[in-house]
Amino acid sequence: MNILIFGAGAIGSVFGGYLNQANHTVWLVGRRDHMMAVREQGLLITGIWGEKRIRLPHAVTQTSEIPRNITFDAIIISVKSYDTREAACQIAPLVKEETLVVSLQNGIGNVETIADCAGWDHTVGGRVIFGVEFHAPGEVEVTVYAEEVMLGHPKPSPLSEKTRSLAIEIDKSGIPTKYTEEISKYIWAKLLYNAALNPLSSLLQVPYGYLAKRQETRLLMEQIVSECFCVANSHETPLFWEKDADYMKVLTGRLIPATAEHHPSMLQDIRKGKPTEIDAINGAIVSLGKKSGVPTPVNETIANLIHALEKR
Amino acid sequence: MNILIFGAGAIGSVFGGYLNQANHTVWLVGRRDHMMAVREQGLLITGIWGEKRIRLPHAVTQTSEIPRNITFDAIIISVKSYDTREAACQIAPLVKEETLVVSLQNGIGNVETIADCAGWDHTVGGRVIFGVEFHAPGEVEVTVYAEEVMLGHPKPSPLSEKTRSLAIEIDKSGIPTKYTEEISKYIWAKLLYNAALNPLSSLLQVPYGYLAKRQETRLLMEQIVSECFCVANSHETPLFWEKDADYMKVLTGRLIPATAEHHPSMLQDIRKGKPTEIDAINGAIVSLGKKSGVPTPVNETIANLIHALEKR
Repeated sequence: MNILIFGAGAIGSVFGGYLNQANHTVWLVGRRDHMMAVREQGLLITGIWGEKRIRLPHAVTQTSEIPRNITFDAIIISVKSYDTREAACQIAPLVKEETLVVSLQNGIGNVETIADCAGWDHTVGGRVIFGVEFHAPGEVEVTVYAEEVMLGHPKPSPLSEKTRSLAIEIDKSGIPTKYTEEISKYIWAKLLYNAALNPLSSLLQVPYGYLAKRQETRLLMEQIVSECFCVANSHETPLFWEKDADYMKVLTGRLIPATAEHHPSMLQDIRKGKPTEIDAINGAIVSLGKKSGVPTPVNETIANLIHALEKR
Repeated sequence: MNILIFGAGAIGSVFGGYLNQANHTVWLVGRRDHMMAVREQGLLITGIWGEKRIRLPHAVTQTSEIPRNITFDAIIISVKSYDTREAACQIAPLVKEETLVVSLQNGIGNVETIADCAGWDHTVGGRVIFGVEFHAPGEVEVTVYAEEVMLGHPKPSPLSEKTRSLAIEIDKSGIPTKYTEEISKYIWAKLLYNAALNPLSSLLQVPYGYLAKRQETRLLMEQIVSECFCVANSHETPLFWEKDADYMKVLTGRLIPATAEHHPSMLQDIRKGKPTEIDAINGAIVSLGKKSGVPTPVNETIANLIHALEKR
């Protein structure tokens, strides 16, 4: 397969590296210093899946450097969610009849933005819950793995068999991956987790485990999740759980204990003065709520506080 | 006049010192180390009003140490707002036919709590907007002065002439003080200021001036103030401003610029691991809103976040 990784940061580089090693033709588009290092020294992947250095010559900084005659089977978008629209515009000219455009991003709204440019037939949602850290140009580390990557079409598509094949190829390359007919549910499940934990943990500067221990933070998580469920219901978005209380049991009973010592990358972004992905998480709930007339004051207050911290 | 200061911390000690110096008979009830230092070395008041050391022998740690035969003209309550109920219970046996009980505290709800114990006839509200820091046992510093102390009865009272006299005596003693028929409006005006600024400034760890500069924090202040106005209206509580937008003009145009570099004492309390007065400020708005069926989600979220920080 011909595969383009657009936004080859931490996560994107790992997908590019593994697929390239599995004899697919991979092009990376990323930041200059990282791309130069990859071209010159190869990509070094360290961490829990072992260490490997992968020769990866097609590492460029913009799509205009890619030869026009290549037809990509898949374009994987792994930019931060606030850059999705620009990414989708840039890759749009590369989308041919059978090209899949795969979002491996955080939050909700990414697949809609991609579909605006590429069409729903081509748009594939991905849910990634493993962690990669960017150490230096040319070097990334896989730090934590939770569950398989899930890939699927948010809307029925004639390309679904090809997406199924892509999932098999990624899985064979070494990154556990499954095809699903329920990708939206997976994306929303990750959203619920991120919406409930990331901003509170960032605001209070505490690990996730703290949030489950205190009455006020449990209440805040309940209110955030409750608003998410109301918004999802108002848009007829199906979730894995019927009621918010069902999800809260999973969150406090299983998910938080498994990641009790974790701090969100959102907190790191704030400390580094970088923007966060809050607008694709709690901010996206507020936007969707406005469209359907569902009030989301807790998510809105939290999102505004995070924005205020970003700009401090 | 015979005057009891119940809760002789920073603010209370200054009132006690000035009144004692003006030849009133003042009793202080306060923490042991501070009271011992005052008895032994006198009270040292430094700061913007000059330096003086005041002999103040009647400094005790509980009301049971006060001779039974003293009839107090005024009992000034200057404990933190979360201790008002206990304070009101303790001073209740000392309230005689003509005793005024004066709250010089932050937030709303204090006069109601005092009236529960002492009755509305005896209850006097106070609005203090000058700052005192407690430096060491026996030593306080007046650091900032904004406007006169205002005293008045929240409900019509046969003791209003006596309150007018008390205001004159405090003023003559050296603390600028006025009697007012509109004390509730003054107390609510201070509440609006504290509700809009203190918790946001504490959460974001920024001075007040920052809050007016950023779009998100302006919006949060508007929402907090808007909920306060809705709650006040639902309880038919008169305010100095007809609409929340009128108050916002005063807040951002005059009040914030005058205190742009200030950090709230709430932030100091959090850093020291002490409880805050949030329940008498934003928390009180939430409670009043619940009583009248007015939603206050922004104040509630903010108050819950502060409580989560308090316990960290």
